[in-house]
Amino acid sequence: MNEQVEIELKNLLNSRYSTSESTRGNYARGEDTYDPILSKAVVFPESNEEVSKILKLCNENKIPVIPFGTGTSLEGNVVGNEKGITISLEKMNKILSVNAEDFDCRVQACVTKEQLNEYLREDGIFFPIDPGANAALGGMASTSASGTMAVKYGTMKTVISGLTVVLPNGDIINTGGRTKKTSAGYNLTNLFVGSEGTLGIITEVHLRLSPIPESIMSAVCHFPSLEDAVMTAQQVIQYGVPIARIEMLNADQMGISINYSKLKDIEAVPTLFFEFHGSESSNHENIKIVEELSKDNKGSSFKWAKDLEDRNKLWQARWDVYYSVKALNNNGRVYSTDVCVPISKITECVKFAEEQAKKFGVRAPMVGHMGDGNFHVVLPYDPEQKDIYKKLRAFNGTLIRKALELEGTITGEHGVGLHKKEYLLEQHPDSIPVMKSIKRTLDPNNIMNPGKIFDLN
Amino acid sequence: MNEQVEIELKNLLNSRYSTSESTRGNYARGEDTYDPILSKAVVFPESNEEVSKILKLCNENKIPVIPFGTGTSLEGNVVGNEKGITISLEKMNKILSVNAEDFDCRVQACVTKEQLNEYLREDGIFFPIDPGANAALGGMASTSASGTMAVKYGTMKTVISGLTVVLPNGDIINTGGRTKKTSAGYNLTNLFVGSEGTLGIITEVHLRLSPIPESIMSAVCHFPSLEDAVMTAQQVIQYGVPIARIEMLNADQMGISINYSKLKDIEAVPTLFFEFHGSESSNHENIKIVEELSKDNKGSSFKWAKDLEDRNKLWQARWDVYYSVKALNNNGRVYSTDVCVPISKITECVKFAEEQAKKFGVRAPMVGHMGDGNFHVVLPYDPEQKDIYKKLRAFNGTLIRKALELEGTITGEHGVGLHKKEYLLEQHPDSIPVMKSIKRTLDPNNIMNPGKIFDLN
Repeated sequence: MNEQVEIELKNLLNSRYSTSESTRGNYARGEDTYDPILSKAVVFPESNEEVSKILKLCNENKIPVIPFGTGTSLEGNVVGNEKGITISLEKMNKILSVNAEDFDCRVQACVTKEQLNEYLREDGIFFPIDPGANAALGGMASTSASGTMAVKYGTMKTVISGLTVVLPNGDIINTGGRTKKTSAGYNLTNLFVGSEGTLGIITEVHLRLSPIPESIMSAVCHFPSLEDAVMTAQQVIQYGVPIARIEMLNADQMGISINYSKLKDIEAVPTLFFEFHGSESSNHENIKIVEELSKDNKGSSFKWAKDLEDRNKLWQARWDVYYSVKALNNNGRVYSTDVCVPISKITECVKFAEEQAKKFGVRAPMVGHMGDGNFHVVLPYDPEQKDIYKKLRAFNGTLIRKALELEGTITGEHGVGLHKKEYLLEQHPDSIPVMKSIKRTLDPNNIMNPGKIFDLN
Repeated sequence: MNEQVEIELKNLLNSRYSTSESTRGNYARGEDTYDPILSKAVVFPESNEEVSKILKLCNENKIPVIPFGTGTSLEGNVVGNEKGITISLEKMNKILSVNAEDFDCRVQACVTKEQLNEYLREDGIFFPIDPGANAALGGMASTSASGTMAVKYGTMKTVISGLTVVLPNGDIINTGGRTKKTSAGYNLTNLFVGSEGTLGIITEVHLRLSPIPESIMSAVCHFPSLEDAVMTAQQVIQYGVPIARIEMLNADQMGISINYSKLKDIEAVPTLFFEFHGSESSNHENIKIVEELSKDNKGSSFKWAKDLEDRNKLWQARWDVYYSVKALNNNGRVYSTDVCVPISKITECVKFAEEQAKKFGVRAPMVGHMGDGNFHVVLPYDPEQKDIYKKLRAFNGTLIRKALELEGTITGEHGVGLHKKEYLLEQHPDSIPVMKSIKRTLDPNNIMNPGKIFDLN
């Protein structure tokens, strides 16, 4: 980065341009397995126009740009760049408009899912995409995130109706809009969703919301084996029960969660967490079917969490999975896998993961969004022990290849980042050239989050 | 088209290469308002490889290519090209695989929605996207179609999980896959969905399916005014009732439909058609709410169609809207509008359409997918009367501008085709350059359906 650019950025942003080592260190990686890489500077724009000016300047001077939200991504998506700058969007955290009667809203990129839901509560509506972390909605758009409620409410791909994106050349474009559907030209919205900051910076997100259901009922069910639990989930989906959440935790993860979140009355055995959204009577109807299926697979009777506080406590344990595993080691890190397979293959895939974990000799807490065929092995490790990382990577590679063999995907919701570039080549050998040609067209100087998703050369 | 290309195509396709005037005439337009344009030849490939060879040859010789499915598109999307060839995909009509337990299937581009649903019935699953026409699934993908059940089941954009696409250079690529979700690289699937054959030819479509609901109940409700009907629909959606279909027909369209489909027991007044999918008890619950809301807006009591035959008859009338209007004139044509607005604006927009139809002096049968804020004025005309087309176009322009003013879109589900290029410029002035740059990258010789969606120069 030359001096002239530094001066221009300073003039534009004043104290919102930082080169201090501690600041740069805070924005040097996400919740991933990579060592931090400090960018030359971190900038904190407050408006689309500022983002535009920054990108234009960087593009003219071929300076790499790393967009940064809450830093909760898991695949190295926001690791810094020694020759570039990191753009933190944290000052763009305003809820711009809410149309309760139309179930839609528009937010700046760094509004988090909890901030939004807090704001919406009084209107009787909510935003249903629920990854583990309290992530920024712009970041969730960038990685095509989903989480626990995708089985009922969809993913970022299906709830985003429009975006404001700043392109590398500084152009500010609006895609999509407020309507529930549109066929007006190419679907640029869904091109930028999941592009992990490699095509431009998402600064605003237009979202579809949902009415808060009349009745919400959560329950927990224990199983004698992981296979029984997973098979139950598979059958619930194949039966077509309209369930809002169906999450699996294996015995190891249950033990870790119970300990970390000080849970009572539940056991460290393979477990399914259920949630039902609907009218009271339709919930009871669906619960009956699910209880029956669980019983057939040797499940325990349901333990209920009926009021809001109990429910939140239950789900807190689920949300804390990542942090509970991370806390196992001092300065520990977590290597999370993210394969997703057709629902008929989920039992086989989870079983394979268990067997391979034993074979590789790795500790393998597991959590899964069973309704979508997506699960994570949440591998804890101490980064000081250099040899273990290789082992975890080999385990993940084995699991990924199994998922591909089962007609699955290398990533259900975390994205590719730095972790899975080689596997993306295996999954989409024929369409990567098209991805690259789009990248080259929109970002000819390769300044946008270079080296993420794929290498251009 | 030079002689050498003709010879190569003939050698490749034999009798599946046709230059007869009658064949060329049959593939010269869709169900649109344009005069037919005969391409130089029509070809009928049977495999991805044949499509690839044809495109490669055309690309090398800069010959325009028009992909053609069932020819039911409404916006001039498949009008022929005097210097090009039309590729009919009608011989690619095989259902390739069905995974009932995973609710997904893969079909060739010219499988129609009815053909697929016929095939799936025994498995207790169905494909829920339901436009008026019995369209080809490849064509429905190309225009990002939706129809009567989008309010519950989504649109082509949300039910397609993967595609096989042949690019202009002959490359055959596979996007997406079988899983319910994926974050593996750019979402090329949704880039090709809605691209109206301008980026490549969709030859295979991977679809999400739905379980046939335990109970389906259809009802009809009459209203004293169109405003009352539309307001009821608006309130049903805002109340969050999980309805599967909520269709509006105005008085004129009701009269036309009753006459054309020989319907009994329903009246030529503003009407809502409802359909409820779920368990019997949840349907009864939802019906109660909808009946209450209808009554509050002066609706009649519900007329029920309970068994399959009655239901099909009812919906046949809805499906036949286009043909019933077309049949009003000998050799008549239909000019269908397609605006979509946020649900809170739908009453205002429909009322505006009614007023403007009077002002312009045009006959205005109307039908609407009320749950999505999307409605069509289905304008009948005699193409021999040259002055009327101008009037209809002016009426549509006025309606489109009103929709844009109401934060709506120029097309909810028909696409842009030739009809709405100028309006697309108004809706997406800032993002059209991005669309064009993607087009230029993937189709540098502009052979794919040139002149549709936008003009490149």
